[in-house]
Amino acid sequence: MKLAILGMGAVGRGILEVLDGKELGLTVTGLADSKSGLMDRDGIHIEEVLAAKRERGFCGDKYISATDIVEQADYDVLVEVTPTDARTGEPATGFIKAAIGRGKHVVTSNKGPVALHHAVLQSMARKHGVAFRYEATVGGAIPIMHTLEHGLAGNRVLAVFGILNGTCNFILTRMAAENLTYDQALLEAREMGYAEADPTYDVKGIDAAIKLVILSNTIWKRNVKLDDVGITGIDMLTTDALRLAEEQHCTIRLIAEAVPERGILRVAPRVLPKNHPLVVDGSLNAITLETDMAGEITLIGKGAGSRETASAIIGDVLFIREMHVRGH
Amino acid sequence: MKLAILGMGAVGRGILEVLDGKELGLTVTGLADSKSGLMDRDGIHIEEVLAAKRERGFCGDKYISATDIVEQADYDVLVEVTPTDARTGEPATGFIKAAIGRGKHVVTSNKGPVALHHAVLQSMARKHGVAFRYEATVGGAIPIMHTLEHGLAGNRVLAVFGILNGTCNFILTRMAAENLTYDQALLEAREMGYAEADPTYDVKGIDAAIKLVILSNTIWKRNVKLDDVGITGIDMLTTDALRLAEEQHCTIRLIAEAVPERGILRVAPRVLPKNHPLVVDGSLNAITLETDMAGEITLIGKGAGSRETASAIIGDVLFIREMHVRGH
Repeated sequence: MKLAILGMGAVGRGILEVLDGKELGLTVTGLADSKSGLMDRDGIHIEEVLAAKRERGFCGDKYISATDIVEQADYDVLVEVTPTDARTGEPATGFIKAAIGRGKHVVTSNKGPVALHHAVLQSMARKHGVAFRYEATVGGAIPIMHTLEHGLAGNRVLAVFGILNGTCNFILTRMAAENLTYDQALLEAREMGYAEADPTYDVKGIDAAIKLVILSNTIWKRNVKLDDVGITGIDMLTTDALRLAEEQHCTIRLIAEAVPERGILRVAPRVLPKNHPLVVDGSLNAITLETDMAGEITLIGKGAGSRETASAIIGDVLFIREMHVRGH
Repeated sequence: MKLAILGMGAVGRGILEVLDGKELGLTVTGLADSKSGLMDRDGIHIEEVLAAKRERGFCGDKYISATDIVEQADYDVLVEVTPTDARTGEPATGFIKAAIGRGKHVVTSNKGPVALHHAVLQSMARKHGVAFRYEATVGGAIPIMHTLEHGLAGNRVLAVFGILNGTCNFILTRMAAENLTYDQALLEAREMGYAEADPTYDVKGIDAAIKLVILSNTIWKRNVKLDDVGITGIDMLTTDALRLAEEQHCTIRLIAEAVPERGILRVAPRVLPKNHPLVVDGSLNAITLETDMAGEITLIGKGAGSRETASAIIGDVLFIREMHVRGH
């Protein structure tokens, strides 16, 4: 099966490294970063391209753009892993629509298009008889979408609760364990590479809220928007609050929570018993699904990382092959 | 899609209740318990059959056997949920082979056939172009098989660690929380319906070992047997051992563990840090998969229960419909 990959950040490079190291029967026939692109219907030489990117900062021909790849390359699946623009969803949404319009499957890790245009993109994909998959957008390596789609098929999902942002979870874990202030823990998160220079999206709960929107629309098809989510971040949390929780064998976590029957759609710090399955430490993510048959199912795993996100992308690609490509 | 169901214990009744309450497009055309059977190609009236079973102790015609159903009923999927015989795997294995031989898909919750004859049954199913699925055999409602098959597709699984027996986990949780002796906690487990009158299979670690065999053979196709598993139960565990663990912020859990590269295949009580994702309380089950791309993924959920097991069975049935039945 032939892949065109857009984006050569940590995720794109992670995917290429995996494809280079594993015999998965997947060929990369198109590739673009923000500055250049290349096409080869016989398969791009991955090692060479990774070396080129490392050495000169771009992967291919500066006269070939991502749009050229989407519109002209010979591929079965578009792997869209450019950076998220949560406000506009562009240019990713345009790429995705163009690929679906050409009858190509799409796999993405980009939260923008899915949070903003889930219903439109799914219905376009259905119309063209192709798959639109986005396992990597929520929970990193945790196969939450596969679990919803197949593992828990037949169940009605009543509620979802999640720790969807590893940066916040790392900060809260450190505050509780070492009695650090928020600022001290944030500094540590930065030093360890868990927090961006500008951590606003993470610590204000916006990243978790975007993922909650994606989960909600996947589960309940209700077309909620980021503005519908009540959001409280962790940046005002005091050491006293954590100590108080501790005294009751509890701790505080930033929980994203959707319970449609009770009108709940929010991200906020919550006090939880320490032995609650959702209470994970460090930069882990965790998601609990409350269902009518299976009861509560919790999934825990790494919420970020180049190889972990590649795992989610590859899982989607292989599933598309299983479902759509005959006789492989 | 048409189902023939063998077994009307807690699991079989759970499935029937779910089918009665949900619009899933599934019709039951054959049904047998240990004493009787019935067939109706237009669909058995589920409420009537459940009432009959309740009132007179059997479901159908005493002259119709499970074998008759398997061999003569008009169905697409055999749902085999008779009791496990871990030593012989019979009569379930015979039913499964006969159904596959007729070109029927099979879904089972029966650990015997899968632990003893996984390779043979899978290859028979492949030869006949049908599915043989057994999500319900391990971890109850936890969709571990779907996760291995699709969610983590492309990953190499390096190791699996699991709390696979809810009875043992309940006993250990109670011993640690209330400083109970093993005998006191076992008594409580019995009173709450978590332990059988004869708890040997559970507390000696045999049930967990059988599930570990199923997991191992599913993941690595190595055809291991129950005899290959080193087994230590929890029945010799002292309150002192738990207190010692407690003093180091740890606790003891019965862990089933397979790490082929290190030759490890065992079930034994292990000391784990309390904040380890695998450490769940009460009768919950938990499974951690260590993989080369996704890192460690942990799944937690109810390991038993009639509705929970029905969830796993129904998930398998719906997946077969998605994969094999066109135009539904």
